[in-house]
Amino acid sequence: MEEKAFQDSYPDDVAWCFGCGHKNPHGHHIRSFWDAPRPPGRGGVGDEEVWTSVCHFQPEMHHTAMPGFVYGGLIASLIDCHSTGTAAAAAYRSRGRELGSEPALRFVTASLHVDYLRPTPLGPVLEVRGRVEEVKGRKVVVNSELLADGVVCAKGRVVAVELPDGMK
Amino acid sequence: MEEKAFQDSYPDDVAWCFGCGHKNPHGHHIRSFWDAPRPPGRGGVGDEEVWTSVCHFQPEMHHTAMPGFVYGGLIASLIDCHSTGTAAAAAYRSRGRELGSEPALRFVTASLHVDYLRPTPLGPVLEVRGRVEEVKGRKVVVNSELLADGVVCAKGRVVAVELPDGMK
Repeated sequence: MEEKAFQDSYPDDVAWCFGCGHKNPHGHHIRSFWDAPRPPGRGGVGDEEVWTSVCHFQPEMHHTAMPGFVYGGLIASLIDCHSTGTAAAAAYRSRGRELGSEPALRFVTASLHVDYLRPTPLGPVLEVRGRVEEVKGRKVVVNSELLADGVVCAKGRVVAVELPDGMK
Repeated sequence: MEEKAFQDSYPDDVAWCFGCGHKNPHGHHIRSFWDAPRPPGRGGVGDEEVWTSVCHFQPEMHHTAMPGFVYGGLIASLIDCHSTGTAAAAAYRSRGRELGSEPALRFVTASLHVDYLRPTPLGPVLEVRGRVEEVKGRKVVVNSELLADGVVCAKGRVVAVELPDGMK
C-alpha cells in the first residue's frame, strides 16, 4: 500500500493548488512525507525532537532555466509547496491530532526565501528536505534544502500561516 | 510595430527559460519593459534616476492556489523572471550599451524573496513593477511589487548575478 502524502489529506475543496493539489490535473502534484527522525540537539521544535520531511520530484525537460539546468521558479515552487505541506503536518502533530482529521488544517505562504547556491542540473530526481524550525499559534516556519544527486543546490525558508478564513 | 521586450533580446541559446525564454514552447513567456520614469529622489540607482520596469501577465485558470486565488509559485516565478530581465536591461543601460548588443548580458537569480501580503485574485491581468535598487559589478538588485486590479498583493526582492560561465 502506498504511503499517504501530507497533501493527500487536503480536503477536496482546498486541493486545487497548481503545486501540490491532488485535484489539479495540470499541476505538479508535489507529495511530501515525514522523514526518518534526526538525532536531538540539532535544532527544531523545542530542541528536543527534529521534525524533518522529504519530497521527491522529477522535473520535465521543459522545466529549464539555461539549457541543462532546472528553472528557478520550479525550485521556488517545490520549496514553497513542500513547506506549506510540512507546516500543515507539523500543526497536526503539535496539536496531537491525526493528519487530515477534521477540521482540516491548511497552510499558505506568508513569505518565501530561496538562495540559489549553484545551478541545479536538469535530469536527476530532485529531493527537498524540510526541517520544522518553529510551530507557534497559526504560524509555522520551515527551512529546507533542495538537492540534486545528493548535492545541495538551493536553500529555502518559508513562513507559513494557517489558511485565513477569507480563502476558504 | 510591437515594442521589444527585454527577453526578446536574449540570444537563442540562453532563451529557453520556462519563465521567460522566447524559445520555450511550454513556458510562461514573461515579457518586461522599461516603465515611464519616476520623479528623482525616491531611491534607485544613485538616487538621481529611478529605473522602473513593468510586465503584465494573464494567469490561466489552472494557476490556482486556493480556488479563486493565484498560485504562489507563479507569483514567485513572475517576480523572479521579471527581475532577472530587468537586471540584464539595467546592466546594459549602466554600461551605456544598447539592449541585446553583443556580447550578451544575461542574469540569473542568486536569491529570491517574496512576501505574500494578501491573496491574489485569479482572473485579472497581473502587473509586476520592478525598481532597480543597485547595479554593482556583476550584481543587480531589483525590488518589485505584484498588483492585481491596482492592489499590491505581493512584494519581491531579487539579487541577480551575471550568468556564470559554467551555465553558458
